[in-house]
Amino acid sequence: MTGTVARTRRPANDALLAIQAPVQGRLDDVVNEMHRVVTDDLPIIREVSAHLLRMRGKMFRPTLALLSSDVTGRSESRATTLAAVVELMHLATLVHDDSVDHSVLRRGLPTVNSLFSHQVSVIMGDFLYSRALTALVGMGDLDILKIVTEVANELTIGEMRQLGAVDALAFSEEEYFALIRSKTASLIAGACESGALCGAPEFRVPLAEYGDRLGMAFQIADDILDYTEDESVTGKPGGLDLHEHKVTLPLIATLGRASAVDRSRIDELFAAEAPDDELIADVIEIVTRNGGIDYARRRGGAFAREAEQALHVLPEGPARSALTDAIAYVMDRRS
Amino acid sequence: MTGTVARTRRPANDALLAIQAPVQGRLDDVVNEMHRVVTDDLPIIREVSAHLLRMRGKMFRPTLALLSSDVTGRSESRATTLAAVVELMHLATLVHDDSVDHSVLRRGLPTVNSLFSHQVSVIMGDFLYSRALTALVGMGDLDILKIVTEVANELTIGEMRQLGAVDALAFSEEEYFALIRSKTASLIAGACESGALCGAPEFRVPLAEYGDRLGMAFQIADDILDYTEDESVTGKPGGLDLHEHKVTLPLIATLGRASAVDRSRIDELFAAEAPDDELIADVIEIVTRNGGIDYARRRGGAFAREAEQALHVLPEGPARSALTDAIAYVMDRRS
Repeated sequence: MTGTVARTRRPANDALLAIQAPVQGRLDDVVNEMHRVVTDDLPIIREVSAHLLRMRGKMFRPTLALLSSDVTGRSESRATTLAAVVELMHLATLVHDDSVDHSVLRRGLPTVNSLFSHQVSVIMGDFLYSRALTALVGMGDLDILKIVTEVANELTIGEMRQLGAVDALAFSEEEYFALIRSKTASLIAGACESGALCGAPEFRVPLAEYGDRLGMAFQIADDILDYTEDESVTGKPGGLDLHEHKVTLPLIATLGRASAVDRSRIDELFAAEAPDDELIADVIEIVTRNGGIDYARRRGGAFAREAEQALHVLPEGPARSALTDAIAYVMDRRS
Repeated sequence: MTGTVARTRRPANDALLAIQAPVQGRLDDVVNEMHRVVTDDLPIIREVSAHLLRMRGKMFRPTLALLSSDVTGRSESRATTLAAVVELMHLATLVHDDSVDHSVLRRGLPTVNSLFSHQVSVIMGDFLYSRALTALVGMGDLDILKIVTEVANELTIGEMRQLGAVDALAFSEEEYFALIRSKTASLIAGACESGALCGAPEFRVPLAEYGDRLGMAFQIADDILDYTEDESVTGKPGGLDLHEHKVTLPLIATLGRASAVDRSRIDELFAAEAPDDELIADVIEIVTRNGGIDYARRRGGAFAREAEQALHVLPEGPARSALTDAIAYVMDRRS
């Protein structure tokens, strides 16, 4: 890792550490709980699990679940298990996503499908998901089970929406919002809402709303990063969405205002089975010049403000402060 | 379909119809419930669901769940939902299995991966599974949830055992039994045990035991069929397991007693990346001549007798009779 990369990353990490400060000790328990939940005697499962837990990300969703459980300072110990389940479900989804997309890298490490096989990744995703649910059933809370299983279903619908978009360039802003609500916001909202049920049930509704809006802003920011950052920063190649003909908000905004010349270059990219780097760089420039990225930033900003408003009914305190800071973190993050 | 096939199939179907007679009307409700559970607005999901529900099999597992719920004549209406969930989970597993195995046919119809795509089959399996669980959570019974989520996890462990068998010919009888208990017996046992909780909770333990032994006999019979029947009868190519280098009980039994000449022909098959029909036919002949199939039949028969013994504590009646007949059906079936 070069010095530049380290410098680029530090602000995001410092911001995240500050958000995680109120629950830092418990995040270690969450990691232990994740290990406990996926433990199995079968050598191949141990091997894949170990790789996946190394690949573990920033623990953003468990952080939100723990903070949500603690907004009145009464977080229950079972919030730790819930947070572990949420992160394992997220991991299960990533494993199947990578398998479906034939992705090679995730968080700078080889994906399960590339390191092991397609077969192993399909089954390992199922394993993680079913183990997470078994742990959740063990908590014995039907309200939480309802939230989490509905989220799990929503995640698959999100994936299907992505596959089902046959004519990519006809993808509307409305369809895009439905897609990212299913594939990203649902799990973040579910983490906050089920977290609330482990200590602050009276704030279940505003925390679900906060999570939904935060999740929308999160995915829009992620889609912007694909236009603005390269692999050395994010751990995955820049322009990947364009390469895979995935249409996100910056491009949707551009399509409504691009000149005929710009439009024909965009069409060229979507007609190319494997668009080359020059074509991708040109379309990124077109999207930037036509204000597509600025537009996406504004829409993301609107969701961020709604997330903040949802927090207003919560009592002041370290958890609420951290949840507020999480909004800025989502908007400012570089990777 | 030729007249021969129709004649071959009739005995099995008549036997199954007799087993299903006590719950025939409710099986129609189960099918309706399956449709209700998977209903979605997204066109691609509707399309794949419709194909899968056409591909629907003999409804053997829902039949067992309903019969188990009715052994004292007090089957609850929620047993219908449970039976639908069990069959949907089975379908979800088949969809992922076919995707992992790159299978082309299932029950004589194209698989989801061959008709749609690998991507669609991975996501659709996740969709079916998460929808089934959402319906199960709606039943609000934590004991049933515990049984079913543990079964779901056991199924993935079974798949992993299959993938993890690196040196196929070193696969022991003990490992084979562990594999089929995970991948087949667990769901059949779970169908019976959770069925019992919907009307006959006092017989939960013997029904779980019955289902386990029945499931073991079922899978052994299935593995024998791969040696004895061809595609026109079973709807999938004969010798497929050998083609895919899957070692099952008839071959394991043969390996312990085959001559050096026979053994070298078997080794040849497992060294060939794509063994031809002649090689497969030779190994089938070797396994038959060495008594591998007879041995497997005897082991299956022993499980069948244990299944029958488990039923002895149940009250006499149409449900118990049908469960007893299900044992003979499993042992005699041709497809």
